[in-house]
Amino acid sequence: MSYVVNIILFEEFETLDVFGPVEILGRLPEIFKLNFISLDGGIISSSQNARIDTSTYDNKHSEESILFIPGGMGVREKVGDEKLINFIENISRESKYIMSVCTGSALLAKAGILKGKKATTNKRAFNWVIEQGKDIQWIKKARWVNDGNIFTSSGVSAGMDMTLGFIEYLIGREKAIEISNGIEYKWNEDREWDPFAELYGLA
Amino acid sequence: MSYVVNIILFEEFETLDVFGPVEILGRLPEIFKLNFISLDGGIISSSQNARIDTSTYDNKHSEESILFIPGGMGVREKVGDEKLINFIENISRESKYIMSVCTGSALLAKAGILKGKKATTNKRAFNWVIEQGKDIQWIKKARWVNDGNIFTSSGVSAGMDMTLGFIEYLIGREKAIEISNGIEYKWNEDREWDPFAELYGLA
Repeated sequence: MSYVVNIILFEEFETLDVFGPVEILGRLPEIFKLNFISLDGGIISSSQNARIDTSTYDNKHSEESILFIPGGMGVREKVGDEKLINFIENISRESKYIMSVCTGSALLAKAGILKGKKATTNKRAFNWVIEQGKDIQWIKKARWVNDGNIFTSSGVSAGMDMTLGFIEYLIGREKAIEISNGIEYKWNEDREWDPFAELYGLA
Repeated sequence: MSYVVNIILFEEFETLDVFGPVEILGRLPEIFKLNFISLDGGIISSSQNARIDTSTYDNKHSEESILFIPGGMGVREKVGDEKLINFIENISRESKYIMSVCTGSALLAKAGILKGKKATTNKRAFNWVIEQGKDIQWIKKARWVNDGNIFTSSGVSAGMDMTLGFIEYLIGREKAIEISNGIEYKWNEDREWDPFAELYGLA
């Protein structure tokens, strides 16, 4: 079992949305091949000034693939970028699993991928995100949500807890614990743990 | 008050060692200007295959500066790289604060920067790290340690807790809490909290 993980970057993505999950998936290089991609390839900058080298999308691989989308300030503009939304929609059709962190779910919503599904998102930006797609069952209080092959997480650092939850789903709890111990991280294992829903007036 | 943060990257640095703290410091762009640097500039790859664009060191800035060093598998080789160790030593002399995450403290130890100081490091690699420098008071059980202008953290994700502790030290607890809430992160605020010391047989 091995997967190509297509991590879609765009200008002003949020740094930790990407690199928390990358740290975790990257600990299993025999299972996950991490591909940083963007619409046109080349250097993409995060909101925190990290400049990341990306390639374009290549669907010529024999392994199954995973689509990963971060959030960030850039999403506010990108929900209106038809080329990017089509790009995401096309890749999602070829992906076995789909994951988003924070406001990345607004891009999935816009691309129609969350139709009829349960999902969550950043808690401070919640009311903006839910306007980006119809017929979606948005969960207010959740660290992350899993519906079928789609995993969506709350804001920024929640992406790490979701990714460990994905490892548990795919491989087992023991491997998720092994990785969280390896990075000296205390996994918030309960997907219903979400003090930020209350903090931001949603619960 | 504003600082240039020189983040030193090298091949096979650990992704989250860098991008956890970068997420936090990057939330205060008016205070911290983040510079990703390396010995020769250009693209540097993390152990998790993130390719980061770096520049060379430039000491011609009017603000005070902060030196930041991650750990990772690359450290095992880099403790023997005299050019890199001299580079770190030289930059440390021009820096107001010095921070390391995980085995990054082995590079500080090798450069003589931790002499006579208290410090900590990754808990699984502890016994290897403490051989990299003499006359250092290594703390086995600590999420992070602060001695004067030097902040060192435990493994990988501990860098986030240390960086929030640094924000508290520099600006105040309220700002640290505001940032951790902003990234939906539950800050491990107690620097003596360290279940991983016991897990890896140190406490």
